Amino acid sequence: MIIDIHGHYTTAPKALEVWRNRQIAGISNPAEMPRVSELQISDEDLRESIENNQLRLMRERGLDLTIFSPRASFMAHHIGDFEISSTWAALCNELCYRVSQLFPDRFIPAAMLPQSPGVDVRTCIPELVKCVEQYGNVAINLNPDPSGGHWTSPPLSDKYWYPIYEKMVEYDIPAMIHVSTSCNACFHTTGTHYLNADTTAFVQCLTSNLFDDFPTLRFVIPHGGGAVPYHWGRFRGLAQELKKPLLKDHLLNNVFFDTCVYHQPGIDLLTGVIPVDNILFASEMIGAVRGIDPETGHNFDDTKRYIEAAAIDPEARQKIFEGNARRVYPRLNAVLKAKGV
Amino acid sequence: MIIDIHGHYTTAPKALEVWRNRQIAGISNPAEMPRVSELQISDEDLRESIENNQLRLMRERGLDLTIFSPRASFMAHHIGDFEISSTWAALCNELCYRVSQLFPDRFIPAAMLPQSPGVDVRTCIPELVKCVEQYGNVAINLNPDPSGGHWTSPPLSDKYWYPIYEKMVEYDIPAMIHVSTSCNACFHTTGTHYLNADTTAFVQCLTSNLFDDFPTLRFVIPHGGGAVPYHWGRFRGLAQELKKPLLKDHLLNNVFFDTCVYHQPGIDLLTGVIPVDNILFASEMIGAVRGIDPETGHNFDDTKRYIEAAAIDPEARQKIFEGNARRVYPRLNAVLKAKGV
Repeated sequence: MIIDIHGHYTTAPKALEVWRNRQIAGISNPAEMPRVSELQISDEDLRESIENNQLRLMRERGLDLTIFSPRASFMAHHIGDFEISSTWAALCNELCYRVSQLFPDRFIPAAMLPQSPGVDVRTCIPELVKCVEQYGNVAINLNPDPSGGHWTSPPLSDKYWYPIYEKMVEYDIPAMIHVSTSCNACFHTTGTHYLNADTTAFVQCLTSNLFDDFPTLRFVIPHGGGAVPYHWGRFRGLAQELKKPLLKDHLLNNVFFDTCVYHQPGIDLLTGVIPVDNILFASEMIGAVRGIDPETGHNFDDTKRYIEAAAIDPEARQKIFEGNARRVYPRLNAVLKAKGV
Repeated sequence: MIIDIHGHYTTAPKALEVWRNRQIAGISNPAEMPRVSELQISDEDLRESIENNQLRLMRERGLDLTIFSPRASFMAHHIGDFEISSTWAALCNELCYRVSQLFPDRFIPAAMLPQSPGVDVRTCIPELVKCVEQYGNVAINLNPDPSGGHWTSPPLSDKYWYPIYEKMVEYDIPAMIHVSTSCNACFHTTGTHYLNADTTAFVQCLTSNLFDDFPTLRFVIPHGGGAVPYHWGRFRGLAQELKKPLLKDHLLNNVFFDTCVYHQPGIDLLTGVIPVDNILFASEMIGAVRGIDPETGHNFDDTKRYIEAAAIDPEARQKIFEGNARRVYPRLNAVLKAKGV
């Protein structure tokens, strides 16, 4: 089977955005703050938003299952305080859960956290627990920069983040390290901030000994690892200069890259440089780049084609499409096994 | 001939760093502020620092000429105010000029600017004028983030930067877009901040129409363009979504990438994806990654080997090694022609 580990609910019914805009208005004018119960989205609305979009493309492209989390750019942890983020995260996670219930063979949820800049991450634990224990989430998205492009939080190697890691280890779930909208004019959200965050997260791991403290902690770096595979020589050299072990020993039991790289040469580099066990199939569809590549006639984000065309053997391809996801997301594997898949 | 367009004076005599540390101490304690005349570095000191380092490696590797600018990580524009940066930039540029006078066939200078966060960039013009007119500098290094990792300046497309561009156009000199030391704990200077800045600068160009205003302006994006060539499909797709022209028309008359990518697969991707006219040979030697790659037995930053091994024809290789540098740096070409080279 083919598992896409990186899908966001970018096509949620318009009512969600309307509610969010009212919530944002309510920050400065409490009289306008909407109640949670005012967000009304029917199963039919959910079904339609998925059938005509993600599920249609999954069928067309031959993808079986998507790990599905709230829209990354809408997390916007920089807006408001913890209470705002908490209410918003709960709504978004509930919608992804409902999608997974409506299409149980097609979508399995991953949670956003109610992060807020400068706030103790322990405040995120109750939502995380609910999403894993009640909603069957198999992973979380962790935002290394809840400020939205100002990078005011400590690096991921800092003990500030450890309460989240302890819970991840307890549940044996990975985190995708994924930022949200940039509110810094220097950084375009999907063109700059996403890729920079990927590189930033990787180097925070490289320069630290985080995985000595958490040997079973697993991070998925999206968007093909930002700049990392392209500069793998630079990073091998930096690790050597910092007297760290070889990258394969220092990081590759804990750090994984997805395949959201939208042209064949990029995927060829990724699969040529990074060990196959560390590459997980993903498309981030429907996401940042929705058009058709005039050079190929296919969608830029139809990454399955690139993996199929890459010079790797069938066993490697199977690992990228399925095997690695089952290993890195054990709770996903357990669900599949329980279904006899 | 082989021209390395990206060398910094990373091996300057210790006296420079000692003087700088006194200058930094003088910011909080004016009694400790050193006079410019207290920095004494003899021609013999300069000669030794170059002969045993950059020039030795240039000879070993078969590189003929280096475009040589002050050490990037030492620019540290975030330290002190404009006066501090101004004094410091003048000293550093003078040293690179003196190196170019001591080794006129081997080094040609490029200038750092006395940037300071939040300060009008017009204040940089006098130093720029001096460096071009009196010191024979053929380019400048422009720091898109003088805050050192907080990204508080406007994007490069903002009119804030236009006075610099007007002078660049007048002199027909390119700018290498190069940040300095990160003072944000999230960003490792050479591992993260340099690469992120490269991607950031490129996307600021992509999302704007800067080169409509300055059709002859030229930016060199170092470190192989950060994440850009690896994600060329993503950027083609983003440009399409933003209704911009094809990247080759929108940016590639104005944006160039160097070859500071420290492994063969990265260079293969760069030369496979980016048109050869936009790739300029560089090593950033002696720089961030000084060790020997255990997988090859050669220095990570010996990028000439990768270009020689790349699957490109001799004409393309000549462009990368020499022809493109002569085109992008016309003042360099004029110097060479005057020498009959």
